[in-house]
Amino acid sequence: MNDLLVMKFGGTSMGSAERIRAAAKILAEAHAKRPVIAVVSAMSKVTDLLLACLRTAEAGDKKDFDESLKKLNKRHFETCRELLPASRQEAALAGVHTLLTEFSRIAKGVMMLGERPPKSIDEAVAIGERLSAYLLAEYLESQEIRAAAVNGADIIATDAVFGNATPLMQPTRERAAAVLRPLLEQRTIPVVTGFNGSTLDGRPTTLGRGGSDFSASIIAAAMDAAELWIWTDVDGIMTGDPRLVKDARVLDAVTYNEAAELAYNGAKVLHPRTLAPLVDRQIGVWSKNSFAPEKPGTRIVRRIEGARGPHAVTSMADVALVSIEPANSVISGTKIMARALEALDRANVELLAITSSSYRQNFCFLVRQSELNRVTESLEECLSLEFAHGYLKPIDVDANVGLLAVVGEGMRGTAGLAGRIFTAISRHNINIIAIAQGSSELTIAIVVHRDGLEKAVRAVHEECALAAG
Amino acid sequence: MNDLLVMKFGGTSMGSAERIRAAAKILAEAHAKRPVIAVVSAMSKVTDLLLACLRTAEAGDKKDFDESLKKLNKRHFETCRELLPASRQEAALAGVHTLLTEFSRIAKGVMMLGERPPKSIDEAVAIGERLSAYLLAEYLESQEIRAAAVNGADIIATDAVFGNATPLMQPTRERAAAVLRPLLEQRTIPVVTGFNGSTLDGRPTTLGRGGSDFSASIIAAAMDAAELWIWTDVDGIMTGDPRLVKDARVLDAVTYNEAAELAYNGAKVLHPRTLAPLVDRQIGVWSKNSFAPEKPGTRIVRRIEGARGPHAVTSMADVALVSIEPANSVISGTKIMARALEALDRANVELLAITSSSYRQNFCFLVRQSELNRVTESLEECLSLEFAHGYLKPIDVDANVGLLAVVGEGMRGTAGLAGRIFTAISRHNINIIAIAQGSSELTIAIVVHRDGLEKAVRAVHEECALAAG
Amino acid sequence: MNDLLVMKFGGTSMGSAERIRAAAKILAEAHAKRPVIAVVSAMSKVTDLLLACLRTAEAGDKKDFDESLKKLNKRHFETCRELLPASRQEAALAGVHTLLTEFSRIAKGVMMLGERPPKSIDEAVAIGERLSAYLLAEYLESQEIRAAAVNGADIIATDAVFGNATPLMQPTRERAAAVLRPLLEQRTIPVVTGFNGSTLDGRPTTLGRGGSDFSASIIAAAMDAAELWIWTDVDGIMTGDPRLVKDARVLDAVTYNEAAELAYNGAKVLHPRTLAPLVDRQIGVWSKNSFAPEKPGTRIVRRIEGARGPHAVTSMADVALVSIEPANSVISGTKIMARALEALDRANVELLAITSSSYRQNFCFLVRQSELNRVTESLEECLSLEFAHGYLKPIDVDANVGLLAVVGEGMRGTAGLAGRIFTAISRHNINIIAIAQGSSELTIAIVVHRDGLEKAVRAVHEECALAAG
Amino acid sequence: MNDLLVMKFGGTSMGSAERIRAAAKILAEAHAKRPVIAVVSAMSKVTDLLLACLRTAEAGDKKDFDESLKKLNKRHFETCRELLPASRQEAALAGVHTLLTEFSRIAKGVMMLGERPPKSIDEAVAIGERLSAYLLAEYLESQEIRAAAVNGADIIATDAVFGNATPLMQPTRERAAAVLRPLLEQRTIPVVTGFNGSTLDGRPTTLGRGGSDFSASIIAAAMDAAELWIWTDVDGIMTGDPRLVKDARVLDAVTYNEAAELAYNGAKVLHPRTLAPLVDRQIGVWSKNSFAPEKPGTRIVRRIEGARGPHAVTSMADVALVSIEPANSVISGTKIMARALEALDRANVELLAITSSSYRQNFCFLVRQSELNRVTESLEECLSLEFAHGYLKPIDVDANVGLLAVVGEGMRGTAGLAGRIFTAISRHNINIIAIAQGSSELTIAIVVHRDGLEKAVRAVHEECALAAG
Repeated sequence: MNDLLVMKFGGTSMGSAERIRAAAKILAEAHAKRPVIAVVSAMSKVTDLLLACLRTAEAGDKKDFDESLKKLNKRHFETCRELLPASRQEAALAGVHTLLTEFSRIAKGVMMLGERPPKSIDEAVAIGERLSAYLLAEYLESQEIRAAAVNGADIIATDAVFGNATPLMQPTRERAAAVLRPLLEQRTIPVVTGFNGSTLDGRPTTLGRGGSDFSASIIAAAMDAAELWIWTDVDGIMTGDPRLVKDARVLDAVTYNEAAELAYNGAKVLHPRTLAPLVDRQIGVWSKNSFAPEKPGTRIVRRIEGARGPHAVTSMADVALVSIEPANSVISGTKIMARALEALDRANVELLAITSSSYRQNFCFLVRQSELNRVTESLEECLSLEFAHGYLKPIDVDANVGLLAVVGEGMRGTAGLAGRIFTAISRHNINIIAIAQGSSELTIAIVVHRDGLEKAVRAVHEECALAAG
Repeated sequence: MNDLLVMKFGGTSMGSAERIRAAAKILAEAHAKRPVIAVVSAMSKVTDLLLACLRTAEAGDKKDFDESLKKLNKRHFETCRELLPASRQEAALAGVHTLLTEFSRIAKGVMMLGERPPKSIDEAVAIGERLSAYLLAEYLESQEIRAAAVNGADIIATDAVFGNATPLMQPTRERAAAVLRPLLEQRTIPVVTGFNGSTLDGRPTTLGRGGSDFSASIIAAAMDAAELWIWTDVDGIMTGDPRLVKDARVLDAVTYNEAAELAYNGAKVLHPRTLAPLVDRQIGVWSKNSFAPEKPGTRIVRRIEGARGPHAVTSMADVALVSIEPANSVISGTKIMARALEALDRANVELLAITSSSYRQNFCFLVRQSELNRVTESLEECLSLEFAHGYLKPIDVDANVGLLAVVGEGMRGTAGLAGRIFTAISRHNINIIAIAQGSSELTIAIVVHRDGLEKAVRAVHEECALAAG
Repeated sequence: MNDLLVMKFGGTSMGSAERIRAAAKILAEAHAKRPVIAVVSAMSKVTDLLLACLRTAEAGDKKDFDESLKKLNKRHFETCRELLPASRQEAALAGVHTLLTEFSRIAKGVMMLGERPPKSIDEAVAIGERLSAYLLAEYLESQEIRAAAVNGADIIATDAVFGNATPLMQPTRERAAAVLRPLLEQRTIPVVTGFNGSTLDGRPTTLGRGGSDFSASIIAAAMDAAELWIWTDVDGIMTGDPRLVKDARVLDAVTYNEAAELAYNGAKVLHPRTLAPLVDRQIGVWSKNSFAPEKPGTRIVRRIEGARGPHAVTSMADVALVSIEPANSVISGTKIMARALEALDRANVELLAITSSSYRQNFCFLVRQSELNRVTESLEECLSLEFAHGYLKPIDVDANVGLLAVVGEGMRGTAGLAGRIFTAISRHNINIIAIAQGSSELTIAIVVHRDGLEKAVRAVHEECALAAG
Repeated sequence: MNDLLVMKFGGTSMGSAERIRAAAKILAEAHAKRPVIAVVSAMSKVTDLLLACLRTAEAGDKKDFDESLKKLNKRHFETCRELLPASRQEAALAGVHTLLTEFSRIAKGVMMLGERPPKSIDEAVAIGERLSAYLLAEYLESQEIRAAAVNGADIIATDAVFGNATPLMQPTRERAAAVLRPLLEQRTIPVVTGFNGSTLDGRPTTLGRGGSDFSASIIAAAMDAAELWIWTDVDGIMTGDPRLVKDARVLDAVTYNEAAELAYNGAKVLHPRTLAPLVDRQIGVWSKNSFAPEKPGTRIVRRIEGARGPHAVTSMADVALVSIEPANSVISGTKIMARALEALDRANVELLAITSSSYRQNFCFLVRQSELNRVTESLEECLSLEFAHGYLKPIDVDANVGLLAVVGEGMRGTAGLAGRIFTAISRHNINIIAIAQGSSELTIAIVVHRDGLEKAVRAVHEECALAAG
C-alpha cells in the first residue's frame, strides 16, 4: 500500500489511560489522511509484572504471586474504567477479565509444575500486549473510529524457538494480507500486539531481541508500508543516554548503519533486527515522542550528506570479557579461535566485540552477561579435550567491565578523534581494558572497568562536543 | 651442562675477516672460563646473494648467474686469504672451494630444470652458513684454539616442511649429545651453522621464521645451556627502530613476553619461536653488540620488578588488512568468522591482529603481505559457496597500511596512555584504521595508513618519552 | 563391597501382588547369604499409563484423563491391598495415595498449560517406579526383612538433559555411598527406583535409553558390586525374538560385545549403555527369569572359549534409510559426508549403520524413525547452502525398510556364512537394500524391505541352525 | 562441431611402427568422412621408462641412468626409422632428437639436485606423449594426410597441482578453439598429446588420475565433439579382467554409471573423471580395439533398456582397509567419524568404500595403498589430541586385503543375487572381511583377504553367468 503508515507505541506511550488517549489522538489524525496500522507494547512495567508473577508461581510463592496478580488486575481494570465511557465499561471490563483469566490459568499451571515451560511463558507474556491492544481498540471505537484489536500471533509466523523466535517472512506476508488488508479496506485501524507471533502450526512464540519494534518493522515490510513511526517517551535518538549525560541532545537524522550500531552497542533505540526488513524495502523510519508529538523526532535514513565525525555515544554495563589463551605452543591459536567461534555460533551467542593481538595467540571477546553461561558451557564442551589435558588455560571471565561505543558515519575523516577520546577517558583515571575498531570506522568500541563506565560516557560525550547545537 | 654458554653471531658479526677475528676473540675469552658453543649466520648479504644466484639460475639468466657466482666466490676466497696465515691458506682455500662447488652444482641443476625445488634450495642456502662456520673454525684453530665446524643439519632434527621446518626436540637432543658433547669434552669449540637442519631421514631443511637465532636457542635448550648470548651489530634491544627514531635507546632488560611481542610486531629482535625453548628451561638470554662487546647489552628475563608503562615501539610496513563482511543476514557472522579462521589455520598463516565490532558481523585481520596470496586463496576455497552465491561480499584487502605496536609490561597501570598515544598520532593527521588491544595489555596494536607509519612511530616514541634516560 | 549383589526387577517382575511376592522371595534368599540392593521398574504398563495421562492432560481431554488416572489409582490401591496384611494396610494405602497425589498435581499443571515441559514429565514418570519400590519395600518389611524404598533421584547424579540424561559417575559414587552404604550396614535391603536421577542441583531427570537396566548397572558400578542379576519375564537372552521365531532358544552365555551388538540392533536385552559401566569393572551379569528363577538364565561374560559362528539374529522395524548424494562433482563427497556426520552429531542422533561405495560419492545411513525429523532438520540446517543452490540432491528417505542383524563372536572363522545368510533371505524373494559388515565381523547388518523383515528373520534364524541344541 | 570425432590411442595402440601405422589407417578412414582429432598416449612402457630414468637420476645412479636413457633413445629412433620413408627420415630423426635432448636436460638437472621437483617431472614425463604424437603426425604427413603434432600443454588449462592437475574448462575451451579449430578448417588432423596440460601462466602439468583418456574427454567436450572413440588393445569393456577370468567376454554396451563404477572399482576402463565432461554434453563414447578395428567394441550410453542384473566384476589388489575405533565412550563416535572424513578430504584421498555398523562406533574404510601414508598422516594430525590421550585406539591398517565389486544396473531387481555371490565366494573358503552395498544397488563391494581375491573374482564371474552369451 503506497501510503500505508505503521505506528508503533512503546510501553510508556501505552502506560495509562491518558497515554492511551494520546496515542489514539495521534492515530486518529493520521488515519484521517491515510491508512494506518498500530502496533503496541504492553503498558509500561506490565511485562515485568507478568514475568514476576510467573517466577513466583514457579517458586510456589503463593503470597507474592497473589500480590503480583492483584497489581496486574488492578492496573488494567482501573485503566479500563478511567479510559472508557460508562456505556462501554461493562463489556470492556469483561473483555479485560477474560484475558486476565487466561493469564492466571497459565500461572497456576506453572505453580503446579514448579517449572516455567517456554511455550507457556511466551503465551502468558503476550497477554500484556493483548490487554493494551484491547484497551486502545476499545477506546478508538468509543471515539467513533473503527478499530480492531489483532493478536500478533495471527500475523507473524515464526520458527519454534520459543522466547527468541525468528520471523518467517513469506507466511507472515500471507497472514498479514489475509488479516489486515480486509480491515484496512473497511477503514478500520488494526491494533496489533507487538512482541508475539506463532509457529506455522499455531504454537505461541515471542520474538526475543528487538521485541515490539521488530513486530512493527516486520508488519511494515510485510504490508509494504510507506513509513514506520516508532513512538517512545523521548524526543528521538539522542547523542547519549540522557540518564547519564545531562546535555544529551536529539539527533535530526541518523543512518540505518548508525542506528544499528547504536542499538548493537547498547542504545535503547531500534534493535538491529528491526532495521533489516526496512532497509531492504527502503521504508522510511521515524523515532518520535508520543509525549510531544509536535516535535520532529529523528529520521532514520539511508545516507546523510556531508556527515562527519562522531554522532553519539552509547554504553552497556551488563557485559563480560572472556579470554582464551593457549597454555603452550603445541596447538595452533588460530585453530582454537576457529573452534571457539564455532562453539559460540552453536550456542547462538551474540559477539559484541572480538580482539586478538599477540604472539601468544590469546584472544578475547565481549558478550552479554545474560549469555555468559551459554558461552562458557559451549566453549567447554567444544574444546573439552583441550581444556582437560591442559592445552588451554582455564577460561578467564572479567564481568567487572563495561562497553562504551562512539558511533558516527565518517569518523574516518576526523583525524585526532581516537586520541581525543582516549585522552578524555584517561583524564578520569579510567582504565581501558580493550579496544576494537573495525575497518568500517563507524564505531570505536572501548572496554573499560565497570566503575568508570558512566564517567567515561560523560567524558567522551563532552569531548566530542555532541551536546553543542 | 651447568655453565655452558651458547653464543650466536649474526651476519654482520661474521661479515668480514675483521669481524670474524672479533668473534673469535669473544669466543676465546669465554672459552677460557667455560665451555662454549658458537652458532653462526652466513656472512652478511651472502644469503641474499645465494638466493639471487638461484633465482637467476631458475630464470636461465646465464650472465647474471655467472656474475653472482663470481661475487660469491670472491667474497669468500678474499676473506679466507685475509683471515688466515699463509701456512694454512692452501688447505683452507680448498675447503672453501669444495663448499662453493657444492653450491654451484645445485645452482646448475636449478638452471637445467628452470625450477627451484624446495629441498635443493634449503641445501643450497645453508652453504652460506657452512662457509662462515668453516672460516671461523679455521681461524680459531690458527689461533691455537681447538674448534670444529659443525653442520647444523647434523644437530637439528626437523619435520619435512622445507623452507619453514619445525624442530623435533627429542631427536635433536640426541643428535646434539652425540655430536657436540664429545667436542666439548675435548675442549673444542663447536662452530655450528645456524638456520639449517635435516629431516629424520636426512634431507636438508631450513628453519624459516627465526633463522639462526632459533638454531642457537634450540641448541641451547637441547644442551641445557646456562646462557645464550646473541651477538648482533646493535647495542641491544632498543626502544624503537634507530633508522626511524633517531633518539632510540637501548633497553637494559626486557621480559620474555616483551621480547616476543616486539618481535611479533616487527622488531628485528629474537623471533618469538626463538624464545619458546628458552622460557621453559629458564635459560638466560643476552642481546649484545659484537662491535662493542664491552657494552652491557640487553638482558631478556622472566620478570622485571617495578616495571610500568610502554617500553618500546615497533612497526611493520609490509602488512595488509583483510576484511570479510556478510552481504546479508542469512548467514551467521560468527560461523563465517569460524570458517575463515579455519581456512587461515589450514593455510598456516600468522594472524598479526584481528578485530571485529559491529552489528554487521564483519571482521578484519592483519597479515603479512608475503602471506596475502595464501590468505585469499584459502578463504576463497573454504568459503567458495558463500562467495559464489553472494552471501559474502568480495574480500576487501587494504595493502596500503602499516602496523605500529607499543609494547610494555604493566601498561595496564598507566592511565591515560592510550589517549596520549592516539593524540600523538593524530597530531600528524595520520588516520587510524583499526585498533586492537587485548586484555593482556602488553601491547597496543594500531593499524594506520602506510604513508603515516614512520611519522606515527616517531610521534609515539616521543610521546612515551622512551628516549629519556 | 566384595560380594554385593544388585538385582534388577523389570516391569513384569513387578507387575502384580503375586509377582512382587516372587521378587521379594528371590531377594530374601539372596539376602540371607550376601548384601543385596534391589532396583525396580514400575509395574508393567504403568509407565505407559502415566504417559497417557500426561498426554490427555496436555490435550485438555478431561474425560480420558480422568479415566486414565482412575485406572492408575485402582491398579496400585488393589495391589497394595492384595499384597499387604491388614495390619499394615492403612499406612501403606496412605503412602500410595501420597505418591499418586504428587502425580496428579503435575498432571493438572500440564492440563492448565496445555504443554508437557520436560522436567515435570521426568518427575511425573518416575512416580511409577516410586510406587513399585514403595510396595516392594513395604512387603519385605511385612515379611520381617528390613527394607527401605529409595528414590533413584537421591542416588544417580546426571546432567540436565531431561528425558535422556547421562549419569555423572563421580557424584553418583558419592551419593550412593552416602545413602546406600548405611542401609547395607544395617542389613537393610535398599529398594531403589530405576530409570530416574537428578541433576547436581536437584532437578529430577530420567535416563532415557537403557532405562532401569542402566540404573542398576550404574548402581552396581558405583557400589563396586560383585554381580548384577537382571530379572525379566524370559529365560535369558535368546537366539531370536520369540514372537517372530517360534523355535528361538535361550543362550547359555553371550559376551559383552555380543550383548551390546544385539541390543544395538534391536534385541530387547540390556542396552549398550547398560554394559559400559560393568565392563570396566568386570562385574558379572546374569539375565534371568523371575517367573522361573530356578532356570540358569544367560550369563554375560568377557569371553567365551571356542565360540564360533552366529549366535543370534535381531531386527528393528522402526528405522529409516537416509541417502545423500552430490548433484554434481563441484563439491567433494568426502567433505559433504564429514559435514553431514557433524550435523548428526550435533543433533545427538544414533547412527545404526552407514555405508558408502560409489564413484558418485553418495552415502546412506540408517537411523531410528523416531529420530528422523531431527536428522533431516539438522542436515538441512548444516548443509543449507548446498541444498539451496543445488549442489546436493534433496535428501532421500526410505522409511519402508527394516534392519536385520546376525550377531556372533567368531563369525570371521565361519566361511560361507554370508553366502548362506543372503541365500536364505533371497529364497523368500526379499530384496536386500543395503549391507554393512564392519571389520570386527561381530555383526552383519542387512537392510531389507520392511514387509520382508519378519520372514527374513525367520529364514536367517533357521539357516544358522540357531534353534538346534 | 556437429560431426567431430575425437579418437584416443592408448600406449599399446602407439607401441610400435606397426601399431602407429594401424592408428594412422584408422584415422585416415575416419578423416575421409568427418573432422577428426587424435589424442595419443606415449608408446607402451615409455612412461615407465621416463620415470625410471628420473628416479635413477635422483638417486645419482649414473650407470642405470645411462642405460635407461639409451633404451629410450633406441626405442624412438628405431621406431622412427622403421616408420618413415627414407626421404623424411633425417628431418624426423632430428625432431625426435630434439625432444629426447629436452628430456635429458631435465634428467641431468634432477641428477644434480638429487631431487625430483614436481613441475620438472610433469614436463619431463609429457615428452613421452610428445614423441609419439610427433611420430604419428610425421607418418600421416608421409601418407599425404595433413597432420600436426600438438602439445596438450597448449590446449588443456589446469590448476597448479602438479602431478594431479584439474582442468579448467572455460580457458581450455578458449585455447582449444584457438589452436585446434584453424587446423580442422585446413583439413589437418591435430595429433594432441594426452596426459599433459599447463597452468594459466604456462607451467607444465600432468592430469594424474585418468590420464590420456581424460585429455581426450576434455578435448571432446571443449570442442563439442559428436563422439569419442577410445582405442585400446582389448575388444571393449569386459565382464571381468581377462587375465583373471579366462572366459570373460566383451559387453555390447554399458551405461555411464556402470562404466564409472567399473573404473572406480578397479577395471582398466575409462576413469570416472573421464566420463563427467561427456555425460553433461551427451557425447557418445566407444571403447574399441585398435588391433581389431572391425570389431564393434563397447558403447557407453546413458541408459540400456531392459537391463537387469550384474554385468561385470572388477577387483583391486593394491588397497588397504583402515579402521578407527574409540577407546571409550567419552567421545562421540559420530563426531570422530566427521573429523576423520574431514581429514581425508583435506588430504584429497579417494574413499573407495566406507562402512560402519556397531555400537562401538568404530568404522572402517578402504583406500588405495598408494594413498595410505597420506591417510594416516592426515588422520593423526587432525585427531592428534584424541590419539595422544587415548580416546582413540591406534589406527588399524590391514593391507592384506583386496576389493571385489559386482556392477550392474538393475541388480535391485535380481532377488537372490547377494546370496549367490556370497555363496560362490565362500565355496572357496575365502574370508569376507567387509561388505558395502549402497542404496543405489549399482554395485556390491566386497573386501576379502588378499590371497583369495583372484579366486573370488573367478567364482563370482562364473556364478553370475557373465561368460554366457
